[in-house]
Amino acid sequence: MDELNREAESAPLIKFFTKLQPLAPAVIELCEAHTYRVKIKKNALLVCPEAVCSECLFFIIKGAVRGFILDDDKDITVWLTDENNLIGNFRNPGIPKMNYKEHMQALEDTELLVLPYDLIDQLYAKFPETNVIGRKLLAIHYHISQERSILSRIPSAEARYKQFKETHPLLHFRVPVKFLASYLGMRIETLSRLRKKSKQENNLIG
Amino acid sequence: MDELNREAESAPLIKFFTKLQPLAPAVIELCEAHTYRVKIKKNALLVCPEAVCSECLFFIIKGAVRGFILDDDKDITVWLTDENNLIGNFRNPGIPKMNYKEHMQALEDTELLVLPYDLIDQLYAKFPETNVIGRKLLAIHYHISQERSILSRIPSAEARYKQFKETHPLLHFRVPVKFLASYLGMRIETLSRLRKKSKQENNLIG
Repeated sequence: MDELNREAESAPLIKFFTKLQPLAPAVIELCEAHTYRVKIKKNALLVCPEAVCSECLFFIIKGAVRGFILDDDKDITVWLTDENNLIGNFRNPGIPKMNYKEHMQALEDTELLVLPYDLIDQLYAKFPETNVIGRKLLAIHYHISQERSILSRIPSAEARYKQFKETHPLLHFRVPVKFLASYLGMRIETLSRLRKKSKQENNLIG
Repeated sequence: MDELNREAESAPLIKFFTKLQPLAPAVIELCEAHTYRVKIKKNALLVCPEAVCSECLFFIIKGAVRGFILDDDKDITVWLTDENNLIGNFRNPGIPKMNYKEHMQALEDTELLVLPYDLIDQLYAKFPETNVIGRKLLAIHYHISQERSILSRIPSAEARYKQFKETHPLLHFRVPVKFLASYLGMRIETLSRLRKKSKQENNLIG
């Protein structure tokens, strides 16, 4: 691929990083050289393309993705996200208490940028200032995860639904009801009833 | 305070950091000079000592602490933790979606090391390699938070209780039932029933 295309491909990621920390031209060049776009179909599972890397992160250019775990074969949605977010299995330098494997599934036809861990390791080693970006990104992800954790502990199902709708006004319409119900810790019937009630209220206001 | 005492005071924190990354002597000296121990009574709320810093983190030397939020004046326990853990309001470089304020309360008489943010800012600025520790620490906290988030989405109350007991075999006995029930998203009566059942099962095995 020529340089111009490479530049265009990784532009959204460079923009995202630059908001956290100014990037040296050599850092941008390395990112452009070692990231690449992939497209996956709705419902497909996200896996790192083995040919290029065994371990990677993804940056969502267009589309929406859910994270889920299997607990005794029960599928539980643990996060939902969309454009301009970094997803994947972040390495854990600590000792995990729970043993779970997070899977990822596209909720729509989705376009992603692949960030192989080889690139991430190179960035940290060659350009120590990229650790600042890593630190800030992980702080952001820590807070997003805390929000998910707090949301699920709100006792009223209606309050959880309203909170999600307020904080994710667009994503809310893009997620199939069965996944959203699982994420919000309620039965599909409860979510359908809450959605109907909310629609009626909106109609009254409108 | 003399140097020897300062060294002894911050030793557990230095040990904790060193596991993540070797520390230069100057980093250790700065940590020793700017951290200090505080003791708080059971049930007291944790706040940064205004005289020293308006913003800080705490490292638990001895004791246990819970994090909670107030949702329409309802007290919801969102995390539980004990010795050798860093707690506090980690800064968020992102745009929070939910608006919540996390409070902290000692579950026992607790001894803590205060890390003022002035120290943290100095470390990041003067010793860029400390960003690697910050990055690894936030990755650990991200995963701990994900575990909390996943735990709360397990549909069966009994499975949530068992999971917590397995992953926190000691902390489990140190947390008052009302806080543990809130954290595990179940009624106090449900938790009491599960505890009784589990005790009977253990007696049968014993």
